[in-house]
Amino acid sequence: MERRGITMFRINESIWRRRKIEFWQRLWEDLEIGYLDEDLMPILILFYTDKKIHTLSSCSGRIIVADSTFPWSREETSVVYKKHSPISVDEVEDILGYSPVRRLWLNVTGPIIHVSTSDMDTAEKVLVIARNSGMKHSGILSLSENKGIVLELTTGVKLTHLLRTPGTLITDLSKLDRLIDIANQVLLEGKRILCKLYAALRKYMPFIPDDEIISDLRGRGLSLEKLSPPNYCRELLL
Amino acid sequence: MERRGITMFRINESIWRRRKIEFWQRLWEDLEIGYLDEDLMPILILFYTDKKIHTLSSCSGRIIVADSTFPWSREETSVVYKKHSPISVDEVEDILGYSPVRRLWLNVTGPIIHVSTSDMDTAEKVLVIARNSGMKHSGILSLSENKGIVLELTTGVKLTHLLRTPGTLITDLSKLDRLIDIANQVLLEGKRILCKLYAALRKYMPFIPDDEIISDLRGRGLSLEKLSPPNYCRELLL
Repeated sequence: MERRGITMFRINESIWRRRKIEFWQRLWEDLEIGYLDEDLMPILILFYTDKKIHTLSSCSGRIIVADSTFPWSREETSVVYKKHSPISVDEVEDILGYSPVRRLWLNVTGPIIHVSTSDMDTAEKVLVIARNSGMKHSGILSLSENKGIVLELTTGVKLTHLLRTPGTLITDLSKLDRLIDIANQVLLEGKRILCKLYAALRKYMPFIPDDEIISDLRGRGLSLEKLSPPNYCRELLL
Repeated sequence: MERRGITMFRINESIWRRRKIEFWQRLWEDLEIGYLDEDLMPILILFYTDKKIHTLSSCSGRIIVADSTFPWSREETSVVYKKHSPISVDEVEDILGYSPVRRLWLNVTGPIIHVSTSDMDTAEKVLVIARNSGMKHSGILSLSENKGIVLELTTGVKLTHLLRTPGTLITDLSKLDRLIDIANQVLLEGKRILCKLYAALRKYMPFIPDDEIISDLRGRGLSLEKLSPPNYCRELLL
């Protein structure tokens, strides 16, 4: 909507609210079937305790070995190996022995969290917290009446290393331990940012408590007070 | 500004306009002193011909060799080599012979263009064109009364390959030609997306012509009709 230089934007709050409750229930179902990256749960819960926020898809960061033309290819890509925690040389060295169909990449990605807010003020506050925690590539993906203001919170943490082509082994097995060591460091840099985000959310959230969510959380034997940081944060310096 | 569920957002159009004209003049100064990535010029001009758009910083994509702890490190990074077009093995093989202070990375990045619009409708149209052209990681960075709606148009095109650590040469010289070949392909994938963006902007822009800019362009001996695609587009299939 556009009127004489004023951009007006109205979110349908009852539809947005219904979606929030659906996403909240799906979150617990996903956790139960092991579909959800468990380490992210405390951060996602903190977002939900605010009346004007819910989360969408998210990932705490991961290491994959992929057979694809380019690291960013989606179609015609097969993921040969995938893990959300540090890996050892044994876990991937065998893979290097087989010739890939396209090319073999070692890809490490940092955390990515999609968030929906029901107003711009909340969106801006979340972006400030995310960027100050190190999620410097965060921004608004879209604005929609029903889906709200959709944010992507993300980092510059990324590794895309060429392991081999069908004809050429680019990275010798003898160098693999050094490379894997650095890939694990990259993964942990991403997790470290998530720990900073957890600490910041713990400090500032909820802006406006969502009583229904907080009460539902209590029904699940949890509460804001009992919430503990993601597991990996114990090992990482804040 | 927030009133009963309506997000209202007013851009100060006279300040925004003054900034647009300043950025337009700076663009030509930057081109003259060689500071601007010349290949981007036709795309930037197309954005400016719309009344409600100007550009900010931008890059058509590049290959760098950097000495840094991580590929994304900004502080404590020295750029050992940088080029906006394909490279040859001769240009970088010597670098591999010297031990880096931190780690040596071969980084290729795709295009990135920052754009400001003076209303949300235009912002959304630009985002649709950018995403449909392959700039799939595009979004809104910020909304501000004076700076307008700031967009980052960007791709997933990226390579961050570990060349060596102080103690270990990860990628042998004998594998360098294959790696450089693929790095050049990555760079060209980014340029190919820019060519698609140019073609789409050519088709749809300006939404609302900016007569002052179009007239200034004529004064520089250029016109929308005479505008030709970036140089690299001639060699790349659209």
